[in-house]
Amino acid sequence: MLKINEARLLQDLHDLAQIGATPDGGVTRKAFSERDVEAREWLKQRILADQFKYHEDGAGNQSAILPSTDPQATQTLISGSHIDSVTNGGRFDGVLGILSALEVLRTLREAGLSRPVHLEAISFTDEEGHLLGEFGSLAFAGMLTPEKLANPRGGLKKLQEGMQRLGLSADSVASAKRDPASIAGYIELHVEQGARLEESNTDIGVVTAIVGIRSAWLTFHGRTAHAGTKPMHQRADALWGATDFMQQARQLIIDQFTPGVMNCGFIDAQPGSFNIVPAQVKLALEFRHRSEELLDEMQQQLFTLAQTAADQRNLTITIEPAINIPAAPMCETVITAIENAAESLDLKHKQLLSFAGHDAQTITQICPAAMIFVPSVDGISHNPKEYTKDQDVINGANTLLHTVLELIKRTSDE
Amino acid sequence: MLKINEARLLQDLHDLAQIGATPDGGVTRKAFSERDVEAREWLKQRILADQFKYHEDGAGNQSAILPSTDPQATQTLISGSHIDSVTNGGRFDGVLGILSALEVLRTLREAGLSRPVHLEAISFTDEEGHLLGEFGSLAFAGMLTPEKLANPRGGLKKLQEGMQRLGLSADSVASAKRDPASIAGYIELHVEQGARLEESNTDIGVVTAIVGIRSAWLTFHGRTAHAGTKPMHQRADALWGATDFMQQARQLIIDQFTPGVMNCGFIDAQPGSFNIVPAQVKLALEFRHRSEELLDEMQQQLFTLAQTAADQRNLTITIEPAINIPAAPMCETVITAIENAAESLDLKHKQLLSFAGHDAQTITQICPAAMIFVPSVDGISHNPKEYTKDQDVINGANTLLHTVLELIKRTSDE
Repeated sequence: MLKINEARLLQDLHDLAQIGATPDGGVTRKAFSERDVEAREWLKQRILADQFKYHEDGAGNQSAILPSTDPQATQTLISGSHIDSVTNGGRFDGVLGILSALEVLRTLREAGLSRPVHLEAISFTDEEGHLLGEFGSLAFAGMLTPEKLANPRGGLKKLQEGMQRLGLSADSVASAKRDPASIAGYIELHVEQGARLEESNTDIGVVTAIVGIRSAWLTFHGRTAHAGTKPMHQRADALWGATDFMQQARQLIIDQFTPGVMNCGFIDAQPGSFNIVPAQVKLALEFRHRSEELLDEMQQQLFTLAQTAADQRNLTITIEPAINIPAAPMCETVITAIENAAESLDLKHKQLLSFAGHDAQTITQICPAAMIFVPSVDGISHNPKEYTKDQDVINGANTLLHTVLELIKRTSDE
Repeated sequence: MLKINEARLLQDLHDLAQIGATPDGGVTRKAFSERDVEAREWLKQRILADQFKYHEDGAGNQSAILPSTDPQATQTLISGSHIDSVTNGGRFDGVLGILSALEVLRTLREAGLSRPVHLEAISFTDEEGHLLGEFGSLAFAGMLTPEKLANPRGGLKKLQEGMQRLGLSADSVASAKRDPASIAGYIELHVEQGARLEESNTDIGVVTAIVGIRSAWLTFHGRTAHAGTKPMHQRADALWGATDFMQQARQLIIDQFTPGVMNCGFIDAQPGSFNIVPAQVKLALEFRHRSEELLDEMQQQLFTLAQTAADQRNLTITIEPAINIPAAPMCETVITAIENAAESLDLKHKQLLSFAGHDAQTITQICPAAMIFVPSVDGISHNPKEYTKDQDVINGANTLLHTVLELIKRTSDE
């Protein structure tokens, strides 16, 4: 049975982890930074040394291409992920998907099998969002709008400097758009960044959807009052309303929306003194679930709870929606291919949701796509302690290999 | 029946309100500021124009003195309050007590009654705590320790500059200490800064105690986690624990400690992002009640609740006590004198607690003391909208006058 070359893949992972390495075993390789440029150059040289065709598009996405054995082939089956990291991130996040895809290309070329489609291993620019987020995959899908380019989360000036550093422009970015008809599919191997696989002693996670994310600023407005002289039942205490809301909202989500999740990650009370009843509390609310229908239902119930909490504490409330990332269901065909691959490798697998964003959630909007997860030790990610065992790296890469083979077989059968 | 001169008192209130006046009818006259200096000069000139003996002690406390008609008299009966204000404060807070005391001195001198004790109207330095808080009354009581002087809430450098502006030094401050045996009593007339008198249609509040104030920083420590990938039941969400605590604490205080109060006026969650479960939440807790026994009981129960909330959410907690101002019961003799005075004036009166701090809470520790409250419209204070009706000003000053007469009578009877 065909397998990837374990030592070669592990060596690549080791080598790339040296670029932007932190003292505690992680990496800091923020998109568009000097370290990112260095990693990109490493990848380019690795692809060229492998004697693949090297391609770099107008969004800075880098690809290794293994042409089809069929001269008439028009479609490409793509696999990859991202090379950038968060500050003090881990050495597996993103990188695993690129280097495994590259290893799959090498393995398939060496196996000398016929390939009815072109194969491509891709590294997308700025997935983590140091400056914009899913920059490369959005451009690839034709969804990196002028509005998005004009309002990057990391600031326009920094993005413009960063794009210049990579030789990119608004025009070049537009040219990165691919014709969906040219893509046979997209498969992304990634570390789980959670502990569900580890806890259930599962080798392979088959991602059925990447959850949608919605967030909002909730501001409760009351009245300042002297924290001594104002009897408690007469206060319009904005923090009291916010507390009621948080308490009830968490219970609601757990009782009625599991495995959907919510978080309040930021809170501020004004004026903010020991002895003044807070007149205004601003709260960052975020919630995630697998479908737009469920997100609509969550939003309706959460906002109603917030309004009720405000009413009951003699407050008013303003709600400003912030992020809205649609839920991204994965493609059934690719899901089945992954499951068949895992079965053939005798690996224990299960379906799960991805609660973090990935390039695949953008790519799935233009072609059949799905994701393979491998266990993260203790579920730790975005942290230098992020770790995935060698055997899980190898299981993931072999599952990717056989998923590609499954999809190639399906293409040949059609 | 002897009454104060209404027009004279109202004119003084009007005149002093011009110093540091804000456009919306309030005053900003922070202790040690240029405006404070200006107000102090006004008061000095007012006292001199009234042909009282003017005294200024080493803490900057200013007094008008009306000597006893008895050449053998050794004791002084004192009344007063403070001339400083908070930023954007009201024109009655503090000032009412000083100017009424001065008016009482004028009225008594004009009445030509025999006075077995000296009478003194006093203005204490920096009651509000722009730089230190109850600076003048603490010095007066011999309680302004070197430790307090070295750690003023407004910063040491600013306090030193401010003291220099008033010509004060550490040595002069020590000299402000009065011999308790020389004081017959202390009565402070003040606006209620709450709405209990107004709501119960009462003219005069007789303060039985100034509540003690305790505060603490509560810090809940959990672990950061990805707000998507970490299932809710596995989180160590510091904000969740803090929310539990606030919810339960408020219910506890309302159910078991009314009229005691609590407040959470400041809250901060770190790292403070939409998509990260908070690892640390810092909370400012304050609670007030009339006796040390009740404060001990509140503290024990609140801290236990906090610990339990932390335990239940898989968190740890650190508690750092902040302010601890002891509860200050007022003197029964002075309380009775105030009640008799109000009765004789046919004014509706009731006993209540003061939930705000006042100079009287310091002075009560060295001599018989109590406070008279008059209604604040809508309970508003520390705000330019602070307002007390002319009739209530007059009622308060007449109650002060007759309280002094009651206490003088009692002294004569002894």
